[in-house]
Amino acid sequence: MEFEEKTIKSELIYDGKVTKYIVEDVLLPNGKQSKREIVRHDGAAAVIAFTDDQKLLLVKQYRKAIEKISIEIPAGLKDAEDENGLKTAKRELEEETGFQAQVWSFITSFYSTPGFTDEFLEIYEARQLIKVDNPLPKDEDETIEVLALTFEEAWHAYEEGHLRDSKSVFALFYWKMKKIQGFN
Amino acid sequence: MEFEEKTIKSELIYDGKVTKYIVEDVLLPNGKQSKREIVRHDGAAAVIAFTDDQKLLLVKQYRKAIEKISIEIPAGLKDAEDENGLKTAKRELEEETGFQAQVWSFITSFYSTPGFTDEFLEIYEARQLIKVDNPLPKDEDETIEVLALTFEEAWHAYEEGHLRDSKSVFALFYWKMKKIQGFN
Repeated sequence: MEFEEKTIKSELIYDGKVTKYIVEDVLLPNGKQSKREIVRHDGAAAVIAFTDDQKLLLVKQYRKAIEKISIEIPAGLKDAEDENGLKTAKRELEEETGFQAQVWSFITSFYSTPGFTDEFLEIYEARQLIKVDNPLPKDEDETIEVLALTFEEAWHAYEEGHLRDSKSVFALFYWKMKKIQGFN
Repeated sequence: MEFEEKTIKSELIYDGKVTKYIVEDVLLPNGKQSKREIVRHDGAAAVIAFTDDQKLLLVKQYRKAIEKISIEIPAGLKDAEDENGLKTAKRELEEETGFQAQVWSFITSFYSTPGFTDEFLEIYEARQLIKVDNPLPKDEDETIEVLALTFEEAWHAYEEGHLRDSKSVFALFYWKMKKIQGFN
């Protein structure tokens, strides 16, 4: 079975700070033509960070795209497409929460929504956190509040719709699974 | 703490089939200005569909945005922003796989990546599947192959990187949790 869509024409519509918006004319496997709207993105990394008393570090921030305050696990953009994801994760944890971690492990990675963007997200778990005296400064355009929530508190934020993005919902179900297994 | 970013100017850059690309000038809580790139999307629904012999229905398709063949749980766009997500899920399961289901339950929902898009995805579980004689036709520009995989086969596709989008990775970890609980 033939799946590939061949690019006939690719047009850069907008070259932004975080995204590039591209429209491509493609030749489908069935011989017909179609258009594909594509958002290019350098990728990101996120952190499931647990405190020693088994709370999850979360950040509260305004998300203009959804016009809502959103509670999410710490995350941020790669400095460049080829930046090591663990390096991004360590920087973002420190910038957004003021913590470093002594134990890191890779949990998963995924394309956010490959129907229209190549954004790829790596998720790490961080434990044995240490508060840093002079942490890396936040990005200039970020207003962030740091929260440390128990499982029940985080699940409540999820049920109320305040924690509802893919990486943070994943993190919460991952935590639930760990609790069922008896690891946390 | 003040979080909200006020819109100073909103410019529609491109009005596409699936997405609208918008650039907004915003006033930050700290009084500074910034730009936000926003992809407007009507939302989607996806289905974790189990066969009676505990296999997961998956669809294989080419994703132009990542230039790869991708194995994903069945999903599709809402006909309109206010379409009921369960209706979307039922239609997409039938269109993409040729199956209807007798038992439906809501599992979760999330914003794919609220840093730049309002795309919201609802995920349902479907059981007691029935093959339909004359299913709803696929979208004209979709080339799809249907797979029914065991947990081990699906996990292998994940480890090999063929199944790597947020909704399908969520589905796989959800399935893993169910297996730990002894439900599947």
